[in-house]
Amino acid sequence: MSSIGPEIERLIQLLAKLPGLGPRSARRAVLELLKKREALMEPLALALQDAAAAIKTCAICGNLDTVSPCALCCDSRRDPHILCVVEDVADLWALERANVFRGRYHVLGGALSALDGITPERLNVATLLSRVKDGVEEVILAMNATVEGQTTAHYLLDALAASHVKITRLAHGVPVGGELDYLDEGTLSAAFKARRSL
Amino acid sequence: MSSIGPEIERLIQLLAKLPGLGPRSARRAVLELLKKREALMEPLALALQDAAAAIKTCAICGNLDTVSPCALCCDSRRDPHILCVVEDVADLWALERANVFRGRYHVLGGALSALDGITPERLNVATLLSRVKDGVEEVILAMNATVEGQTTAHYLLDALAASHVKITRLAHGVPVGGELDYLDEGTLSAAFKARRSL
Repeated sequence: MSSIGPEIERLIQLLAKLPGLGPRSARRAVLELLKKREALMEPLALALQDAAAAIKTCAICGNLDTVSPCALCCDSRRDPHILCVVEDVADLWALERANVFRGRYHVLGGALSALDGITPERLNVATLLSRVKDGVEEVILAMNATVEGQTTAHYLLDALAASHVKITRLAHGVPVGGELDYLDEGTLSAAFKARRSL
Repeated sequence: MSSIGPEIERLIQLLAKLPGLGPRSARRAVLELLKKREALMEPLALALQDAAAAIKTCAICGNLDTVSPCALCCDSRRDPHILCVVEDVADLWALERANVFRGRYHVLGGALSALDGITPERLNVATLLSRVKDGVEEVILAMNATVEGQTTAHYLLDALAASHVKITRLAHGVPVGGELDYLDEGTLSAAFKARRSL
């Protein structure tokens, strides 16, 4: 497009690489940024630079923070005897928002996938196995309820068998607020089998 | 959320202000950025800074470019006797992508809206009226086919009446590739009334 200068074109291309944004929404975002240069565009540029320079990956759990070990690993109020294993930092954030877990985390950095060539060596599995040796009593496998997530959970179950640690997984069932009519058969079947007496 | 540092929190808040992104997709975008720090995050920060510093609003037509007057206004191959009036720079980009127009543009910077308090004084109307005096033969009112866009077009039609310039608008009709079944009654009615003999 001759009418768009190279600076704008480059910005559109970079923004379009973000998940949830395509070329069309990236163009809309760039126009919004250019209209709010001082209120949005310049602060965003600075915030990106700051975060890029400051954020590290925690050497213990794989979380993202400005310090390594991260604030969660350093928090002495969190129980070091329970490890919650998640695929991604996004899952850690989601659990922290739910505010249900006061132990420590371990971020695998993905899930096993033969298709995408994700082998156990490419995930933080070795560090998990060595952490478990260090007085851990329970490992919660909080993988996604997808084929890849469940494959990963099965793999970790085998890998952790020798350590004789207690291994649990999240419950499957009807999401809170969910309507049965809209749920898939797998979820309904799991919820039915795991029914509890009142 | 205690687990997210202030740098990441600020980045999420800024990204969530972009059109098309909410808090959830902004979190996903930030994680993607943090995973691709050198390939995406740092280049994006630089591209934002470059564009914020370089991009100006064209003093003649209201387009965004690194120079003012913009490249379109300076392009001697474009016919200065035909002006295409659009609401926004996004509309100018869309028309340039369609590659149908070789005249000059005029960007109003919005549409009249009593609800949002957008009066003619807040749009680039005065500059349009003075440009029209300067040898312009045709003004194409390419506003959006919305209530605000059509109100703006009517207002401009009145405002331009004294200049005795030829005033046209874009045709209404069935979008190319569109299926009648999915079109609203207004479009169908306009397409029917404007039918052409073959």
